[in-house]
Formats: sequence, structure tokens, C-alpha cells
Amino acid sequence: MMQELKDRILKDGKVIGEDILKVDSFLNHQIDTDLVYKIARYLGSNFSGVNKVLTIEASGIAYALAVANYFNNAPMVFAKKSKSKTVDMNTVYKTTIKSFTRGTESVVTVAKDYLTKDDKVLIIDDFLAEGNAALGLIDLCKQAGSTVVGVGIVIEKGFQGGRERLEKMGIKVESAAIITKFENGKPILK
Amino acid sequence: MMQELKDRILKDGKVIGEDILKVDSFLNHQIDTDLVYKIARYLGSNFSGVNKVLTIEASGIAYALAVANYFNNAPMVFAKKSKSKTVDMNTVYKTTIKSFTRGTESVVTVAKDYLTKDDKVLIIDDFLAEGNAALGLIDLCKQAGSTVVGVGIVIEKGFQGGRERLEKMGIKVESAAIITKFENGKPILK
Repeated sequence: MMQELKDRILKDGKVIGEDILKVDSFLNHQIDTDLVYKIARYLGSNFSGVNKVLTIEASGIAYALAVANYFNNAPMVFAKKSKSKTVDMNTVYKTTIKSFTRGTESVVTVAKDYLTKDDKVLIIDDFLAEGNAALGLIDLCKQAGSTVVGVGIVIEKGFQGGRERLEKMGIKVESAAIITKFENGKPILK
Repeated sequence: MMQELKDRILKDGKVIGEDILKVDSFLNHQIDTDLVYKIARYLGSNFSGVNKVLTIEASGIAYALAVANYFNNAPMVFAKKSKSKTVDMNTVYKTTIKSFTRGTESVVTVAKDYLTKDDKVLIIDDFLAEGNAALGLIDLCKQAGSTVVGVGIVIEKGFQGGRERLEKMGIKVESAAIITKFENGKPILK
């Protein structure tokens, strides 16, 4: 756990409805750049042997870049959510990810060239809830024969089962902050 | 112009169809992290007085973060393309951007709290073609009363008029690489 991030969530996080934490002011719309690099050092220091960082567009990208910077500027790959003219579906790994926040399912792809058997991958994302995004990214790594070193998360919702699902697969999970529950419209942090 | 980026485009860029440059192997799918920070230093060194960096999700985010890091970890904001449950449309600035690559139009928003009259904004994006994304981001800054210090671009397609449209508005544009044309399926760089 990272005290500075915990303090910031308590100060600036807003709870919307029953279980959505809005941290747009510093984490995933406006970005506190200094905090990003501190989070990256915290997450990076908990893993070793990483030679590639994988995330999913869009809000994981800033954290993944900073973590890749921590690992001696290892390459970073972001899985893509939509098809553009420049994606050839014969050359990509694909998986389906359910978004908790948006209530949607999306097909997510990584070009086969950018995940290989030689990659020791640290998966980075801004949130962990039920773990669907992480499981999707792990699935892409498995298709590629890449090694998953672990999953690094900025904010984990510790009550939605994501960590348990990942740890059951033998995946190491490290989060910079863990919310254990929401109470009276406030996050309670571990 | 940045020689290392020019060399890399010539080595690893692929031209698809008549005018789409695919640089997925190092620039906007798999990211060469070391190159990102070099590009950020190049772009950053061409502007001064910046206290906020603005981009648009998703592929601009990595470059915007690295440029924000260059400017003493200034805050970075990325405009969002889609509505999620956590966006209240009464509290955002919005504009419409046509995507050259995808052939689509999208509504793009920034929460009003994160662009203000005090912001001296450097707009960063991975590509400049007709300039539609940059014009949309400038429009958001104007709505907010923010000062636009300039536009920093990783790869400019110099034959699609984007720079001219921006410079006519008095906006300074700096690009790390400029493609003057495509010839026999190869990019010709300035």
C-alpha cells in the first residue's frame, strides 16, 4: 500500500452511486504526473525480471508507460479495444472483456508481433474490480506463450473478487491502494 | 526534426493503402519507451511556459505523459471520446472531432474542472493530418479560456493541411518528424 495515494483518494476521490469511485481529478482524466511516477516506482519495486509492460487503452496507458520507464524503458504494449482500418484481424490475438464501469463487453486485441514467448510481462491497469480486464490480458499472454510476471494495479476494489480470481491462477497481484468497502459514500482503505 | 525518429520511421514504418502510415511496432500499439522520452524532450524543448499538457485518448496519452514529465511533472489531461457512467455532461466542455484514420466523428469531452483560465496548455498528439483532433482540443481550450502555448506532434503528415490550418490561427506547431509525401509505398521525410 502506498500512503500518499491512500491520502489522495480520501481527499479527492468521489463515490458515485454505490460502488463507483471517481478519481478523475488526479488519476484517469486529469493526471497528477508526479503521482504517476511515484505509483510506478511503488508497483515496479514489487516485481522483477520484467521485460515488457502490457495494459489496455485508455486509462492504463499513463501508468504502464511510467512502469515501463521504471524497468529501464522496457517496451510497453497497450491492447486495443476497437478495430481501425489499420488492424488486420488475422494477425492479432483477441479476447473479450466485460467492463464493470460501463456495463459493456468489448473485443480486445494485441498484434501477434508484440507478444511473444520471450516476453516476461507485467500487466498494469488503473483499476481492479472483478478482474475481467486483467483476466483478458492474461488470456492474450497465454495465447502468445508469454510469461505473466504479475499484475500491478493502481486502485483495487478489494471486495469484488478480482484478486482472488487472479491468485487462484497463481498470478501475483500488487496494488498501490486497496478499497475494502464503501461506507456512507466514502471509500474505506486497507 | 528528430533524426532518430526519422530513421525509425524509414526502418519500421509500413504504408497501408495510399496514405496510412502504420507505426504500431514502436509508436502507437507497442511503444518504444526510450524513444517516447526522447521525443518528449525534443518536443518539450521547443516550448516554454507550459503548466498543463492536453491530449486525446488513447494513443496520445503516452507522449503527453512523457512531455508532462519533461515540464516538471505538470498535470496532464486527456480528453475522452466516449461517455461512461461517471461523466456528467453538464460539467464538461465538448467538441466534435472527425477521425481521418477511422472515418468517424466522435464527441470529445474534458471536465470543466480540468481546463481553466490559468492553464497554459501544450497540446500533444501522435499524428497531425488535417488537424481535426488538434482543432478540437484548441476549441476545448478556448471554451475554458485557457491559453494554447502550442501543438506538439510526433508524426506530421505535411501534405494534409493540418499545420496550415493551425498556423493561420496563430498556433505554434512543432513536429518530431514530418512526412512530405508517400511515394511507391514509402514515406518521404522532410
